Amino acid sequence: MTQTRQLKLGAMIHGVGGTMDGWRHPAIPSDASVNLGFYKQQALKAESGKFDLVFIADGLYINEKSIPHFLNRFEPITILSALGAVTSRIGLVGTLSTSYSEPFTVARQFASIDHISGGRAGWNVVTSPLEGSALNYGKTHPAHQKRYQIAEEFLEVAKGLWDSWEDDAFIRDKESGVFFDPQKLHRLNHQGAYFSVQGPLNIARSRQGQPVIFQAGSSESGKTLAAKSADAVFTNHENLEDAKRFYQDVKRRAAQYGRTSQEILIFPGIGPIVGRTSAEAEQKYEEVARLVTIENALHFLGRFFDHFDFSQFPLDEPFPDIGDVGSNSFRSTTDKIKQQAKEQNLTLRQVALLAATPRNNFIGTPDTVADLIQQWFEEEAADGFIIHASVPGGLDDFVEQVVPILQERGIFRREYEHDTLRGNLGLPVPRNRYTLARQKLHR
Amino acid sequence: MTQTRQLKLGAMIHGVGGTMDGWRHPAIPSDASVNLGFYKQQALKAESGKFDLVFIADGLYINEKSIPHFLNRFEPITILSALGAVTSRIGLVGTLSTSYSEPFTVARQFASIDHISGGRAGWNVVTSPLEGSALNYGKTHPAHQKRYQIAEEFLEVAKGLWDSWEDDAFIRDKESGVFFDPQKLHRLNHQGAYFSVQGPLNIARSRQGQPVIFQAGSSESGKTLAAKSADAVFTNHENLEDAKRFYQDVKRRAAQYGRTSQEILIFPGIGPIVGRTSAEAEQKYEEVARLVTIENALHFLGRFFDHFDFSQFPLDEPFPDIGDVGSNSFRSTTDKIKQQAKEQNLTLRQVALLAATPRNNFIGTPDTVADLIQQWFEEEAADGFIIHASVPGGLDDFVEQVVPILQERGIFRREYEHDTLRGNLGLPVPRNRYTLARQKLHR
Repeated sequence: MTQTRQLKLGAMIHGVGGTMDGWRHPAIPSDASVNLGFYKQQALKAESGKFDLVFIADGLYINEKSIPHFLNRFEPITILSALGAVTSRIGLVGTLSTSYSEPFTVARQFASIDHISGGRAGWNVVTSPLEGSALNYGKTHPAHQKRYQIAEEFLEVAKGLWDSWEDDAFIRDKESGVFFDPQKLHRLNHQGAYFSVQGPLNIARSRQGQPVIFQAGSSESGKTLAAKSADAVFTNHENLEDAKRFYQDVKRRAAQYGRTSQEILIFPGIGPIVGRTSAEAEQKYEEVARLVTIENALHFLGRFFDHFDFSQFPLDEPFPDIGDVGSNSFRSTTDKIKQQAKEQNLTLRQVALLAATPRNNFIGTPDTVADLIQQWFEEEAADGFIIHASVPGGLDDFVEQVVPILQERGIFRREYEHDTLRGNLGLPVPRNRYTLARQKLHR
Repeated sequence: MTQTRQLKLGAMIHGVGGTMDGWRHPAIPSDASVNLGFYKQQALKAESGKFDLVFIADGLYINEKSIPHFLNRFEPITILSALGAVTSRIGLVGTLSTSYSEPFTVARQFASIDHISGGRAGWNVVTSPLEGSALNYGKTHPAHQKRYQIAEEFLEVAKGLWDSWEDDAFIRDKESGVFFDPQKLHRLNHQGAYFSVQGPLNIARSRQGQPVIFQAGSSESGKTLAAKSADAVFTNHENLEDAKRFYQDVKRRAAQYGRTSQEILIFPGIGPIVGRTSAEAEQKYEEVARLVTIENALHFLGRFFDHFDFSQFPLDEPFPDIGDVGSNSFRSTTDKIKQQAKEQNLTLRQVALLAATPRNNFIGTPDTVADLIQQWFEEEAADGFIIHASVPGGLDDFVEQVVPILQERGIFRREYEHDTLRGNLGLPVPRNRYTLARQKLHR
């Protein structure tokens, strides 16, 4: 019996939301970003929909113009741990930057979440796009290329630390008094360009071997890092063709590192909006979009360009040529914004309002949304999706109305296949490097 | 009506325990240190006993000779967050080192636990005694004095970041679209000897203002740091006289910084062992003590002295003179060990076995243990105690058999007075520095 390829789903839990003004909607609890009840409800809703994972995004720098969710929100390690204690099957994936943290601490905290949750942890590796982050850590923000060199070495160290103990290292024989087998404890002794870490880590491997690695940058360096070291990629695309190109690109790069297509999963982020009719869905989008002021929209747009001040340009003339501003930050996003403005001949006002309340094509009746998902999935633009709620109740609507259709069509599970995140994602459990080496030696 | 001084209680949850061989006891789950069920059961048991807090200790370096609990245990930030989601009233205090972390991250993670738990977070500030920690972070282990200078500045930064937002900064008025009052958002702009941190922190103050600060070093530098900056001190004493001296010392130092006796609470750690008779309690101690091998006892003793190898000395001769070894580590502990060995003319074997299975005087019937606790409390050797389970079921026995006596005697609560940790500890909520400054200006 051949295993049919199955769709994977993640739910981004994002408090008051990813826009400047979405919090003003009457149905949004305005403290959602620091409300455990809200996070718990969303995680349990996603779990009831058999989602593979919840996803917590992050950032390390705010200013007066940051979007409300960023100003006052849970830190990912803490909220993932809390959700680990109140859920039982869903994966717990969160963002943490390799530019402003230490591999020993990060490896340890994700391993600990992995133990708390019985093997459901995942780490979304980012390099921190915002220059301002450096001001909170008393250092210079590394340039784009260097950030990815650091990330690569950081991940190498983390994975090394996660192998400190072989799977059967802890014997715990009360009779003989042997707690562990010293032969199965390994020091990493890493000495690299950016990190020196001796190890061993003070926590065992989990039931899924190592936490699942997500990677979220879509630049050249990001794609290469993903191809080499990640289990999954979180990305964003305007249309099916772009998504397909990206999908093929990453899979091809992974193949160059000897990895199969099943070993690296591509998750575009989408914000589906579901209505009983297409008009009702559009109305839901409009309800959120009309909450935005043009001032906030310009601030929001500026954020992608190192907080560039767009208010100096006329609103109703073509999107201005601002040269290379922001190229060290959200490079792939700013490239897309510029491209779209040019292709569609958009004014600054149009670009700003669209950026402030992004919309994608996943808007319509449950069947329409399910059709699109199925198309992206079957045409290999996506192995799964990270769903975020672009309107209030967006996740609930999706779970209640779209998931049953995907199940009916046989492309999404009705029950969890496993109790680890790797198990549900169909990813292999990474073998412990020292166990492998010993087995090769004895062969 | 005058407020009667009330005893405070904390429960250290410590997996398979703080000894080399306690895990061998049949009643201990041998995976307790990475078992969420065990931590949850202990936290809920302590909460049923109206304890003020649970306490999670930590360390950043292990080797083959470390005690079993240290080899494979939960990281404090993660397990505290998990416990925050499954408890409702008990405080959540954990150790984190200022020598190997960044103030922005640490301030943020504890603030996040504070929000997850509705105002129940506490941070036990340590400077990492073990030299080996440095090897996991690619730096040189700072000398004792310098570690405390770093800690002082670190705490100053953390407290500054926790005041980034005034209590009423978040307006969240959907009608007007005002999410926050920019006048009530403050950048710290800290530039110090060890840290440069701009801020603001990306999370609000919690219901208790700021997390409770514990401090755990009993050296001169430790006591000074505590007197200046801590809400509570976790300490260890062999006898009532030492404890009283320490108590008076810290309170006097605090007074020099203008702080009242009620603003800094002293918590000796004790491992009470309760039996129906005194003989039964002694038997419980013996059951654990006899699990220790002399080899393990020597290793354990060596740990306090920078992993010094004591096996080179004869076992049954007086404790050897080893000079100043280990003076950069657990200084107050090693001083006590040497002093006790000299005063009681102990052999190396005796010192090692006693170190490996420490015992205190809190052993006996529930009434005996309650008497001692009351005496220490009333004679001002302690404002409260951190209870650890030195025998299996130690916390359960204490909650079920000793707590009711303390309640009966009117020195310990029957119900929680508050729902924040500060509230239950009777500590003042630190006023936001910027709010205070504005009020002074307007007076």
